[in-house]
Amino acid sequence: MHRTHVKVLEGVLDANGTIAQANRDDFDRAGVSVVNLMSSPGAGKTTLLEKSLWGLGVRAGVLEGDVRGSLDAERIAALHVPVVQIETGSAFGGECHLDANMVRSALPALELDELDLLVIENVGNLVCPAEFRVGEDTRAMIISVTEGEDKPLKYPLMFRACDVVIVNKIDLLPHLDFDLDKLLYHVEAVHPGVETMLVSARTGEGIGPVRDWLVRVATREAVPA
Amino acid sequence: MHRTHVKVLEGVLDANGTIAQANRDDFDRAGVSVVNLMSSPGAGKTTLLEKSLWGLGVRAGVLEGDVRGSLDAERIAALHVPVVQIETGSAFGGECHLDANMVRSALPALELDELDLLVIENVGNLVCPAEFRVGEDTRAMIISVTEGEDKPLKYPLMFRACDVVIVNKIDLLPHLDFDLDKLLYHVEAVHPGVETMLVSARTGEGIGPVRDWLVRVATREAVPA
Repeated sequence: MHRTHVKVLEGVLDANGTIAQANRDDFDRAGVSVVNLMSSPGAGKTTLLEKSLWGLGVRAGVLEGDVRGSLDAERIAALHVPVVQIETGSAFGGECHLDANMVRSALPALELDELDLLVIENVGNLVCPAEFRVGEDTRAMIISVTEGEDKPLKYPLMFRACDVVIVNKIDLLPHLDFDLDKLLYHVEAVHPGVETMLVSARTGEGIGPVRDWLVRVATREAVPA
Repeated sequence: MHRTHVKVLEGVLDANGTIAQANRDDFDRAGVSVVNLMSSPGAGKTTLLEKSLWGLGVRAGVLEGDVRGSLDAERIAALHVPVVQIETGSAFGGECHLDANMVRSALPALELDELDLLVIENVGNLVCPAEFRVGEDTRAMIISVTEGEDKPLKYPLMFRACDVVIVNKIDLLPHLDFDLDKLLYHVEAVHPGVETMLVSARTGEGIGPVRDWLVRVATREAVPA
């Protein structure tokens, strides 16, 4: 009896994992590769997508997570990229992250069969989004150089949870007291061997490798086993 | 019976409020004014404190909230300002915010009677910290101009919860596509009449009014009723 009880408890604790797997199965059936994109507020997730998704040569869609509003979804929609908004503030009690169930609730609004790539833009937060799988193939995070070199040490779970770390706003480096080598050293310390890309989503510098990576994810060349 | 049950339930839900009041009572007994300082990761909370607390003429202490590490506490300690670290990652399950109980756990390590002003530097996050009172007199947030003009619309609870909004990194304005008037318009839209201050914690520009405000909090001239 005790054993059974423990099994039930494990089942409840892992409800997010169960729903994430259901999402994963739906993505696989539709042949769509999924990126979970995370960062602090204002690190440049939407701007990076604006610069990356246009004319990518694969059919991309976006799922936008925000506490409130649909500003980012409107920016993506302006590119004629299919986009669905999840507002965690009204429907999900103001959650500071997306979970598998929130993503699942949005799937009926997406034509998954028409997509090769789905980017899930998570709520801006360096803590909780890293704790919730949503059924993605791969996870990427953006750290902007305005946030300081210490962030990998302060938010190690986020940096460890990601397959790719995109360092954004490098156009601002001449105007900051920021040591890029120190940031990369800290990234490597908490997640040895993780792929890093240096970009300015604003100027377009370095955006080519990000676009190439998205294509490789869409064609399943860059999806972790 | 139903009524009693509801009362018990309210009590449980409001455990944070009960502990916040106990903190508040301790602060009042010691005659210390308390600021809850919140922002995104990397918006400049610690740098602002480094530039503001030194030689302030009131006895200031700092309580540092971080998911992991004590980097910020070490920066504050270097100013010979009393500082206590709360690490939410190890002791409190990786919480993305401080709550009243975490603050309470740190109080024995502070000599409250020796302080006029205590600044509680919350975990970097624009969502959950706004939901948890910790016994503070007043709340301030920092929004950096690198985060974009849309943040008040996306995180309205945080902007509404604060008595003061400090706009940081204004030294970077010439290098950004950022409309300061638009940000201030959005701040005013979600929190009409809120006090705003424009600063560069890095260059020191605008730091005088922040220091004056901290002194007025410490002497209880700038504490909301």
